[in-house]
Amino acid sequence: MFSETNAAGASWTMAGVSKVDLNCDMGESFGVYTLGADAEMLKLVTTANVACGFHAGDPLVIDRTIRLALDAGVAVGAHPSFLDPWGFGRRPIQGEDPGDIERMVIYQIGAVRALAEAAGHRLTHVKAHGSLGNMAAVDLDLALACARAARAVDRDLILVVMPGMETERAALQLGLRVAREVFADRTYDDNGNLTSRKKPGAVLHDAEMAADRVLAMLEAQAITTVTGATIPARIDTICVHGDNPAAVEMARVIRARLETQGIAIEPFSRTLR
Amino acid sequence: MFSETNAAGASWTMAGVSKVDLNCDMGESFGVYTLGADAEMLKLVTTANVACGFHAGDPLVIDRTIRLALDAGVAVGAHPSFLDPWGFGRRPIQGEDPGDIERMVIYQIGAVRALAEAAGHRLTHVKAHGSLGNMAAVDLDLALACARAARAVDRDLILVVMPGMETERAALQLGLRVAREVFADRTYDDNGNLTSRKKPGAVLHDAEMAADRVLAMLEAQAITTVTGATIPARIDTICVHGDNPAAVEMARVIRARLETQGIAIEPFSRTLR
Amino acid sequence: MFSETNAAGASWTMAGVSKVDLNCDMGESFGVYTLGADAEMLKLVTTANVACGFHAGDPLVIDRTIRLALDAGVAVGAHPSFLDPWGFGRRPIQGEDPGDIERMVIYQIGAVRALAEAAGHRLTHVKAHGSLGNMAAVDLDLALACARAARAVDRDLILVVMPGMETERAALQLGLRVAREVFADRTYDDNGNLTSRKKPGAVLHDAEMAADRVLAMLEAQAITTVTGATIPARIDTICVHGDNPAAVEMARVIRARLETQGIAIEPFSRTLR
Amino acid sequence: MFSETNAAGASWTMAGVSKVDLNCDMGESFGVYTLGADAEMLKLVTTANVACGFHAGDPLVIDRTIRLALDAGVAVGAHPSFLDPWGFGRRPIQGEDPGDIERMVIYQIGAVRALAEAAGHRLTHVKAHGSLGNMAAVDLDLALACARAARAVDRDLILVVMPGMETERAALQLGLRVAREVFADRTYDDNGNLTSRKKPGAVLHDAEMAADRVLAMLEAQAITTVTGATIPARIDTICVHGDNPAAVEMARVIRARLETQGIAIEPFSRTLR
Repeated sequence: MFSETNAAGASWTMAGVSKVDLNCDMGESFGVYTLGADAEMLKLVTTANVACGFHAGDPLVIDRTIRLALDAGVAVGAHPSFLDPWGFGRRPIQGEDPGDIERMVIYQIGAVRALAEAAGHRLTHVKAHGSLGNMAAVDLDLALACARAARAVDRDLILVVMPGMETERAALQLGLRVAREVFADRTYDDNGNLTSRKKPGAVLHDAEMAADRVLAMLEAQAITTVTGATIPARIDTICVHGDNPAAVEMARVIRARLETQGIAIEPFSRTLR
Repeated sequence: MFSETNAAGASWTMAGVSKVDLNCDMGESFGVYTLGADAEMLKLVTTANVACGFHAGDPLVIDRTIRLALDAGVAVGAHPSFLDPWGFGRRPIQGEDPGDIERMVIYQIGAVRALAEAAGHRLTHVKAHGSLGNMAAVDLDLALACARAARAVDRDLILVVMPGMETERAALQLGLRVAREVFADRTYDDNGNLTSRKKPGAVLHDAEMAADRVLAMLEAQAITTVTGATIPARIDTICVHGDNPAAVEMARVIRARLETQGIAIEPFSRTLR
Repeated sequence: MFSETNAAGASWTMAGVSKVDLNCDMGESFGVYTLGADAEMLKLVTTANVACGFHAGDPLVIDRTIRLALDAGVAVGAHPSFLDPWGFGRRPIQGEDPGDIERMVIYQIGAVRALAEAAGHRLTHVKAHGSLGNMAAVDLDLALACARAARAVDRDLILVVMPGMETERAALQLGLRVAREVFADRTYDDNGNLTSRKKPGAVLHDAEMAADRVLAMLEAQAITTVTGATIPARIDTICVHGDNPAAVEMARVIRARLETQGIAIEPFSRTLR
Repeated sequence: MFSETNAAGASWTMAGVSKVDLNCDMGESFGVYTLGADAEMLKLVTTANVACGFHAGDPLVIDRTIRLALDAGVAVGAHPSFLDPWGFGRRPIQGEDPGDIERMVIYQIGAVRALAEAAGHRLTHVKAHGSLGNMAAVDLDLALACARAARAVDRDLILVVMPGMETERAALQLGLRVAREVFADRTYDDNGNLTSRKKPGAVLHDAEMAADRVLAMLEAQAITTVTGATIPARIDTICVHGDNPAAVEMARVIRARLETQGIAIEPFSRTLR
């Protein structure tokens, strides 16, 4: 499936894929509570999505995360959410007016951007968290609200989106750049959606299998679904996780496999035009 | 006491005082809860201090308040606080590291600034709320933390301070401009501090008496204390309140009395050099 | 429609309806924020549903409300909700495990019951608030979770339910007593559900019209729907509101009209067997 | 120092000390955040103080903790706090009216008690957490507020107190039983207070040294201070921690050393008369 056998020269890369970004959600600790191996993940990824205090994170955690990212040369973006610390932003909260969502997201991006600038770093992107991201992926009004919020804060902010979903549509409609993301450890249904976590097989636990799949999707520039179908999609970034030791190990394997293939790991904020 | 009898010409003003700012804390509603006659106060004041969501306010309230202020031609600033919605930011929270306070304040200013910019308005200043302001007034480390936070977000932000207190010292030390504020409805002790709300006579309820006192302090460019002593102080802005009908009426009387004296009511952000 | 013309003797009442309860949601203030004319409503109603701190209320408000109710001879119950102060418990929060809902409701009932007992009052009932109530009305698992929570705290607690809905079914299934409630100011669809607030005519604003409708429903012991259909239902209590002056006035009119009809206003906790 | 060499018979115990309780703060996880090795600690201690949702914990965590404790045969009590999840209840919040503290504590005890009863367990005691406990130890009004709250919920609740401090005084004044507690890993000043965490040597990290000290205090029935002075005090319970692996190990060592001395580890709720 991969083009290893097709190697031709020093600058060979897999089917023309010469680089990709690895991103990770971070800064999800709160007060005395620690979550995620941020320091370790910052050695593996090129882009960090920083929680904004609505599902996780607080001003001290945000500041610390941004400074660690700066030291590690990792790009940072805002990872806004519904206001739901108890549910970690994973519970759908219905009935919000899109205009209200827009204001809620501006607030969060603005807060994190100010801390980034104070630390001498720069905010490159926005990625909606949890159920806000999931709901926006299939609801154009919500997706537009998120995109408008990003644009209101800074027209140069890149929106991290699921390829083919409403979030991508909204960003493009508003003239924002997008980074198309696939998840290393999640499977997809034939609509290009993530399989519900409640279904068996929704989450991959085997690092090598996840790496195989990531490489296959990059090679094909397409999402592979649970039925084996492929949905063509430019892939700019791969989401990995750091909330448990196995996840960190998976990220390590994926990065190593990518590099073995000659694929450079670079922040999308540097490579997207 | 005043120089009405001393009128000399068309452009005459009281003892050289030709203008002053009126400021009011606003945007302190939350969700379904309404607090403060913001719409009425925006007709009376020239500067609004907008709650940032930590003691009051939320992204929707902040946005609404800023847009109303913009329509009314009123300058807006951030009104950061301890995180304490239950206590409305009025309870001293001890033991905070000044560096933590700085991050907490950057977060809040950044959030409100982003909403202001999204609405087409501009953030002109920062005024610490409640116990954060009171504690910073007498604690240079805290005061410096607040001032550094403002400077980190925007060097042009003006700090609203109590004349002669640590907040003023900190702002000047960091090279920030200051707007020196007196309270229309509060009395002062001989240290230039507000008299504790727990003492009788700490709060003025009579509008005419409050207006007399404001005019006296402007005329003297000095704070009048409860013992009758005066503490010289440049006065740039007068804080009025809008959280009950009597407060709104007091603000109306003060504004009328100032205008009768020929004193123009202008935002300090326009007149401070 | 009513039997006024049919009066026969001293003890005559409308179609055998000799008494009914009036209930009102209360204790929805928080910190400095005041909501609802609780003191006025306590003169009009016989049963108060006290917010538990999850959508509104706090320990001080709960205590104050219960003591006012005790003085006024008004029965108190717990009014648990999703944890959502920003959305006032009105936003559907999806994906909760019923077991989690049960624990969340036990926590709230327990907290309010302890404050009631400390004040020398007694908790008589539980009524789910906002979207928790709406969702439980059509979801038996949720309804059972709420009912189990009430039973776990005290088997004698009465569940306030919408007649014919899942909440009633769940309570009866678990052997709890129910108080069947109609809303004075809301219209019903043909399923016996409240008409969505987003539809025109969902909320009645005319006090006399609301009183007419209440009397009609009591007379018929049936819910009248927007299409004019009737759904037979024993009616034990009528929900009135106190969150604005018009609502208070409507409650006053309804009470007066009921009393004119010879219907006694008594707490359901006293009359239900 | 100890009487090992003095052994005389089968039922010999150290200076007449035949039993003591070990207690641990638990249930301090929140939502997705895990804190403390509760399951391990439940094998080591006889009494658990369960966080009530104000500094840590939530209804699901509380329920889970209580059920684990029930299975392990461990007594449970409420561990109320200031409302301060961000600061984990460790920050002094000034200016609270004691009556308000009382209501706030009743709310918390009531909530946890309801969950305990629903799980088939029984609440035996109350121990104030963090800065609430520290402030109450030196402020009789605060201490009385906490004691009144416990008494209001259940006269049989035992108050866990620092010997000789205001909390003990308040409990005795109100006729409540007290469990006098020493901390295994903290040093004391000559007032019987804990040495401030900010001072060097405030916290013991060596398990054997901590065990030596615990045994010495039990033997002497007195608190040993940093200057070597002793303050006579009946000691009913020893507080150990489980928030990191070293703490768990220290608890294990202390328990083993106590048992080696023939001291039975029993819940104070069973042994106090």
